[in-house]
Amino acid sequence: MEHTYTLVISCPDRVGIVAKVSNFLAMYGGWITEASHHSDLDANQFFMRHEIRADSLPFGLEEFRTAFGPIAREFEMNWRITDSNTRKRVVLMCSKDSHCMVDLLYRWQSGELNCDIPCVISNHDDMRSLVEWHGIPYHHVPVMKDNKEAAYAEVERLIEEAQADTLVLARYMQIIPPALCDKYRHQIINIHHSFLPSFVGAKPYHQAWERGVKLIGATCHYVTEELDAGPIIDQDIVRVNHRHAAQDMVRLGRDVEKSVLARGLAWHIQDRVLVHGNKTVVFS
Amino acid sequence: MEHTYTLVISCPDRVGIVAKVSNFLAMYGGWITEASHHSDLDANQFFMRHEIRADSLPFGLEEFRTAFGPIAREFEMNWRITDSNTRKRVVLMCSKDSHCMVDLLYRWQSGELNCDIPCVISNHDDMRSLVEWHGIPYHHVPVMKDNKEAAYAEVERLIEEAQADTLVLARYMQIIPPALCDKYRHQIINIHHSFLPSFVGAKPYHQAWERGVKLIGATCHYVTEELDAGPIIDQDIVRVNHRHAAQDMVRLGRDVEKSVLARGLAWHIQDRVLVHGNKTVVFS
Amino acid sequence: MEHTYTLVISCPDRVGIVAKVSNFLAMYGGWITEASHHSDLDANQFFMRHEIRADSLPFGLEEFRTAFGPIAREFEMNWRITDSNTRKRVVLMCSKDSHCMVDLLYRWQSGELNCDIPCVISNHDDMRSLVEWHGIPYHHVPVMKDNKEAAYAEVERLIEEAQADTLVLARYMQIIPPALCDKYRHQIINIHHSFLPSFVGAKPYHQAWERGVKLIGATCHYVTEELDAGPIIDQDIVRVNHRHAAQDMVRLGRDVEKSVLARGLAWHIQDRVLVHGNKTVVFS
Amino acid sequence: MEHTYTLVISCPDRVGIVAKVSNFLAMYGGWITEASHHSDLDANQFFMRHEIRADSLPFGLEEFRTAFGPIAREFEMNWRITDSNTRKRVVLMCSKDSHCMVDLLYRWQSGELNCDIPCVISNHDDMRSLVEWHGIPYHHVPVMKDNKEAAYAEVERLIEEAQADTLVLARYMQIIPPALCDKYRHQIINIHHSFLPSFVGAKPYHQAWERGVKLIGATCHYVTEELDAGPIIDQDIVRVNHRHAAQDMVRLGRDVEKSVLARGLAWHIQDRVLVHGNKTVVFS
Repeated sequence: MEHTYTLVISCPDRVGIVAKVSNFLAMYGGWITEASHHSDLDANQFFMRHEIRADSLPFGLEEFRTAFGPIAREFEMNWRITDSNTRKRVVLMCSKDSHCMVDLLYRWQSGELNCDIPCVISNHDDMRSLVEWHGIPYHHVPVMKDNKEAAYAEVERLIEEAQADTLVLARYMQIIPPALCDKYRHQIINIHHSFLPSFVGAKPYHQAWERGVKLIGATCHYVTEELDAGPIIDQDIVRVNHRHAAQDMVRLGRDVEKSVLARGLAWHIQDRVLVHGNKTVVFS
Repeated sequence: MEHTYTLVISCPDRVGIVAKVSNFLAMYGGWITEASHHSDLDANQFFMRHEIRADSLPFGLEEFRTAFGPIAREFEMNWRITDSNTRKRVVLMCSKDSHCMVDLLYRWQSGELNCDIPCVISNHDDMRSLVEWHGIPYHHVPVMKDNKEAAYAEVERLIEEAQADTLVLARYMQIIPPALCDKYRHQIINIHHSFLPSFVGAKPYHQAWERGVKLIGATCHYVTEELDAGPIIDQDIVRVNHRHAAQDMVRLGRDVEKSVLARGLAWHIQDRVLVHGNKTVVFS
Repeated sequence: MEHTYTLVISCPDRVGIVAKVSNFLAMYGGWITEASHHSDLDANQFFMRHEIRADSLPFGLEEFRTAFGPIAREFEMNWRITDSNTRKRVVLMCSKDSHCMVDLLYRWQSGELNCDIPCVISNHDDMRSLVEWHGIPYHHVPVMKDNKEAAYAEVERLIEEAQADTLVLARYMQIIPPALCDKYRHQIINIHHSFLPSFVGAKPYHQAWERGVKLIGATCHYVTEELDAGPIIDQDIVRVNHRHAAQDMVRLGRDVEKSVLARGLAWHIQDRVLVHGNKTVVFS
Repeated sequence: MEHTYTLVISCPDRVGIVAKVSNFLAMYGGWITEASHHSDLDANQFFMRHEIRADSLPFGLEEFRTAFGPIAREFEMNWRITDSNTRKRVVLMCSKDSHCMVDLLYRWQSGELNCDIPCVISNHDDMRSLVEWHGIPYHHVPVMKDNKEAAYAEVERLIEEAQADTLVLARYMQIIPPALCDKYRHQIINIHHSFLPSFVGAKPYHQAWERGVKLIGATCHYVTEELDAGPIIDQDIVRVNHRHAAQDMVRLGRDVEKSVLARGLAWHIQDRVLVHGNKTVVFS
């Protein structure tokens, strides 16, 4: 995999942003391998993402940040630059359903997901063997009605210890406390097993079956305090019919869940997802 | 097109239904060209649809009904038999958006939709020329805040005069009065421009844009008193992204709306849709 | 999982088949949980599949076969009946690409694939640890230019030893000898990484990239002597664009390959696939 | 619709292209509403498309071309700039199948396709009434075995008279002579009723049925001398099964054909399609 820097910018829209940024890059010989722009005309906001060959620039990230600072201030940019050699640290959280975990671990092991997985945290012990076979530490933190505060203190400690910058709720069937949502804002990715905003909350496939829909879906979104209401990263669906009982929907839905979650996580890892308000710009 | 009878049955499930019905048909030499069965294990209800070559039977519909009566009673069947030579009479209702109308009229004219369209009723006069070019009478029945009762009395008169058995709301942007819903129960087909149950009611594409979903959809359903809550016949979706404004969703959604409505109507015309509770069995 | 018998029939079409079969079942109290019929009007061939609750019948498979024999002979049926308690024995064959294997093993372990996997055979040793972690024996049978005959003698011996009735080529990158194709006719399932009949043979994604197609696909089919030309069980596609290099197509294609293969195999295991000529009837 | 200029560029890739172009635009106050870039790493070619608010620039197209000339020469650009107020002139050609025509004419009439349609040319007279109802002249130019040269001389004369820059073969079932292909290179759009490169040539649905595929498709491509082998603009598919006869595939395929053609044409009209070799970059 090529060594690249990824520059991600969001700022109020006006004439000259692209010129200023691309001039800056060209001045230092920066070779752009991928560039994406988006003007949100409603919000008058501009979004921009560049991948630049690291070895085409005469300096590293720190110097880049210093040199680019004045431009960022001039245009009131919300921006970041990341290095493909500094892999994101992603903690996976799960409960008992293993389909998303098996899928993510395969993609990670095969090199498709360019990240580190310092550990897995679960409220059950069921997936220990699977996770440990992949050489990843497994922490069992039971969550009960009466120990939630202590449990999430321990979860938070483990996340900090792992120096994680991303949490993935891979069918983790517990509600994340508001404080944790807030601390890891736009860094916690959940897969909800419905085509949101339909069927919020528990047992969405049973709700779908009850309503008699002809498509079921899954939604990958950032977790916010309000349940199942955070910014949507990706969604997909699969066709069902009268022959499918709720249990069949559960089975068919698994395939959609795992592919939507894997896609959303890959985009997050590659800094392709920009959040604005409660929506996302995804430069996929 | 071959001359066929379509026999549609719904009854409590028990052993021997298929044997009884297929024996009856075989006894008279009935040649089955298509057969579909479904056992709803939750509801303990059985659903069945046969297409039979008309010329393989020694009698017509009336005699069939008489001969089959005892079996129907024995198994407490809710049943009907229709003749492919007796085309359904479908009244189309529309407002100003023409995409569904253009599509349905093309499919009707090209012979893809095997039905009669005795007339079109609209609360606007915009589509008169298009409809009349197809040789179909056009009735303009304005619906205003203060004339609703009179307007729907006129609509009902026109429907009766047309001897219609099916109404299609092809983006007809008015709410059908409960009495009419009731009178034409499971005979009024609507296309809602969202993936129900998301975004019930007005301006669903704007609701979808506001929520930041990554897929938009359309739902073809039977109209019941409760708005957008009737039995769903078919649904489909199209992928959108951050570059699509609400107006783009309106444009993209048109293609989904028209194909979902056309599909739902075709299945209804061919007696492929069986309603049970608030759900459908579709033998597509 | 309920204990059922699956009765699969193919015979020349004529009046009375369904009546005869359903009468037979009804006579013995057979409770049909799923029934599918298909008349191929071109070939004048009739196809039929029933799932019957085992405990609703007064006898087992042997007695069923005896009792049903006369009907089968009368209608010149090609037929079989299987018992859901007698799981198919499926040998998986693979090379170095692990995506299909990881997926199939997960589905097997989670109970989604109702079959036994007596062993895995590979021409490489790469997946030994993965397979053995699942508790399945792994046989490494290298295939080289000059040992093919001996290698496939060993493969055949292992298959026989495993008492397999189904072989799955889960990205096994070798050509199966004609004699083996013939011996396990309609029992060897392959996943080809293109939307056949486009891009037969080697490196299909590179062929697809070269041609500039906007969709890539995968095809699950029964293996016959003619390469990539056997009866197709299922196909699916994924959208690509100018940003995707051949290598990206390889990556995206993996997800289609694994889901199409898993679907095809599940249908095969459930006796839902009937082959007629070089085509399949799939009662999915 | 906003008044915009569209600037489309293709050139050898090197550092500084984006900087130069965006600087040029910024210098004159050009407000970019949409920008897309693509680096083809294999071909070392760079592709770029900008939409610019016309009223944000202090000059018109002619002056733009003069001012931009030196940059274009410096970077060896293949480039064009178009004005949204100067609509493309699209001649439609058809035979007897009307589904694509009905669809395109609706989209044109409703304003979805921003182009002029100066006339329709057909080798049959069937669609005269439909076309003329839309207020478009209809030319019937029969094509027979022994008059092809004269017929295409007349076709060419009509195209020239119409000052067309784009031809659409909306199920025009004749082969365009090489000289005409050459004269309107990358300006003739065809819809082929298969998922190319499968089923080239005549009766593709019958070929598909014969092969027993589980998906059928359609391909929108630029016409070149080699039949069905030109650069692909878009493709799509629909699922079929054993119940579908070749005739059903024809019917189902119509919906795919018309939507793929409409999409391809819209992208062409908006200068979103860049051809490089035998492939397309589509900034959709």
